Amino acid sequence: MEAIRVELGERSYEICIGPGILPQLGGQLGEFHFSRVALVTNPTVYALYGNTLLHSLKKAGFDAAVVTIPDGEEYKELLWAYHIYGELLKHRLDRSSALIALGGGVIGDITGFVASTYMRGIALVQVPTTLLAQVDSSVGGKTGVNHPEGKNMIGTFHQPRLVWADVDTLRTLPRREFLAGMAEVIKYGIIWDETFFSFLEKNREKILSLDNAAMQFIIRRSCEIKAEVVSRDEREGGLRAILNYGHTIGHALETATGYTTHLHGEAIAMGMYCEALLSSLLGLIDRKSVERVGSLIGSYGLPSKMPSGVDEERIISSMQLDKKAVAGELKFVLPEKVGSVVVKGVRDTEKILESIRSHG
Amino acid sequence: MEAIRVELGERSYEICIGPGILPQLGGQLGEFHFSRVALVTNPTVYALYGNTLLHSLKKAGFDAAVVTIPDGEEYKELLWAYHIYGELLKHRLDRSSALIALGGGVIGDITGFVASTYMRGIALVQVPTTLLAQVDSSVGGKTGVNHPEGKNMIGTFHQPRLVWADVDTLRTLPRREFLAGMAEVIKYGIIWDETFFSFLEKNREKILSLDNAAMQFIIRRSCEIKAEVVSRDEREGGLRAILNYGHTIGHALETATGYTTHLHGEAIAMGMYCEALLSSLLGLIDRKSVERVGSLIGSYGLPSKMPSGVDEERIISSMQLDKKAVAGELKFVLPEKVGSVVVKGVRDTEKILESIRSHG
Repeated sequence: MEAIRVELGERSYEICIGPGILPQLGGQLGEFHFSRVALVTNPTVYALYGNTLLHSLKKAGFDAAVVTIPDGEEYKELLWAYHIYGELLKHRLDRSSALIALGGGVIGDITGFVASTYMRGIALVQVPTTLLAQVDSSVGGKTGVNHPEGKNMIGTFHQPRLVWADVDTLRTLPRREFLAGMAEVIKYGIIWDETFFSFLEKNREKILSLDNAAMQFIIRRSCEIKAEVVSRDEREGGLRAILNYGHTIGHALETATGYTTHLHGEAIAMGMYCEALLSSLLGLIDRKSVERVGSLIGSYGLPSKMPSGVDEERIISSMQLDKKAVAGELKFVLPEKVGSVVVKGVRDTEKILESIRSHG
Repeated sequence: MEAIRVELGERSYEICIGPGILPQLGGQLGEFHFSRVALVTNPTVYALYGNTLLHSLKKAGFDAAVVTIPDGEEYKELLWAYHIYGELLKHRLDRSSALIALGGGVIGDITGFVASTYMRGIALVQVPTTLLAQVDSSVGGKTGVNHPEGKNMIGTFHQPRLVWADVDTLRTLPRREFLAGMAEVIKYGIIWDETFFSFLEKNREKILSLDNAAMQFIIRRSCEIKAEVVSRDEREGGLRAILNYGHTIGHALETATGYTTHLHGEAIAMGMYCEALLSSLLGLIDRKSVERVGSLIGSYGLPSKMPSGVDEERIISSMQLDKKAVAGELKFVLPEKVGSVVVKGVRDTEKILESIRSHG
């Protein structure tokens, strides 16, 4: 097991990564002295790992309440948060209690939101079981639920007390979801680390066959980069915005298609490619690097080009409603080369449209 | 106009108190450089002060969106928060925008909750128009909405950027609401300042006739005490809990009666008396001081004794669900004398029942 520390003063915490570590979580929680714990999950993940986790908690003296919400992004909304609040009250969780989020990004985000707002904030433990959650959403304290007008429009910053990532859980992850998670892994290479990007180019076979050492490495390196960025800028006053690379267009595509057509990572993959293209249209990056980004995305079975028939006007108007838009100006994270990005406001709607339309 | 500073590092802010200051708010907001502002209020307050405030904002260049929710504690819930989110999105408020809460405690609490969770947190300006809001709920950053199982069960800590209290608004406040606000004023005397308590005993006539100087003084002194306590303990790790004097029993009474029978201040008045009585049953305060507390409460037209026919068992079970309960132990703020309190866990349910039952 490896541990990475997210340095945030009194809100610092560790991300523990390793194969087969799920049964040890209960023991680890002992030091926190929680009065009660509730496990928040969905039926799919619960069927796979619920018993292991409950057993581990029981051995450590925790008689955990279990709260489930249906499986899917469309349930990441306020009504289901309301359901969770009710269950926590029913099970008498108090201010010294903790929520354990067992699942992917949806479970992590909504559970984090509830933890941050239940009795003005209680402890949160993230147990991510998807690649996306392990390398991205479980780390850094962003929580949120969706609104029909936009993704994560309702949310908070609320750091977890511990992130517990069992790499073995990826073996039960549907292939499509695994690949979608790779989009965020690729993102770290583009925004921060050319060497890591090369590693992903060279080790495609190992990664796609879930080689233990390769998986542990890419998850650790992704978390290291995210921890570094979040430690320097917890609340996205500046640097942290680079983690949104691919997300301005990606989120807008998700909103325009009702969150049902593409997985989050697939939308981000297309967003990353379009935003690299936009960067080249603005003269910030050479076309060859854009194609290198496109190739790596494609080599992991992810889409890089926008689906045909996409409603471009709708995407533009969704972007204007995005949290990242300020006073009508759209903010983009634009690569200058592989491994380095800048954040820029872009007012030239034509260029944005062109980057979305351009099919290679 | 007087200004009191709440010292909270980079989250510090000023409480400005004075007669007739509403028309100057727009000018004051200039320095904050908000991209947009939305006024959140209820139809009653909007009819009285909406035009004055909108005019002041317009002069300062703000074309404010207006969002109203119905008037009453029963609307301080998640569904109405959801309505506000939707309006903010419709009016394109972004991360650099601000919400202005114009109204009493309900408006301040729900608007604060929405401000803290809209796009992971935007700015909040409190413009309290009731005595309760001016001396208590607009200051200190507690936000919340109610859940059928308990008051403010869903909430956050989110400090305002400015509190703007126009004392003249109290002249349009229904008498019963004004008196209810006096309960929180009396609270500050009991928990912190015997001299202030004496002032309230001696200046009853002036206060009840809304004498300008007396009103300005009691609001300023109440805010000073609250600011001092909050500056020392923002998130209720310790000291801040003393502000909950009267609230353990008061909240439980409100929950048990569905928030409709008593105004918040009336419930707190009864809670303060019962908790003083509990303190004497536990041998912490002399009976004479308890009666002094009861007399002052009564002299401002507030109830001190529980209504007959109240369901005591329901009150106890509501208390056990209170945010202040930890691992089944009920926390009480107990006066030792007028001007000084201690926070104590009480397990003796019989004594608690006795303090509720005791009708003088």
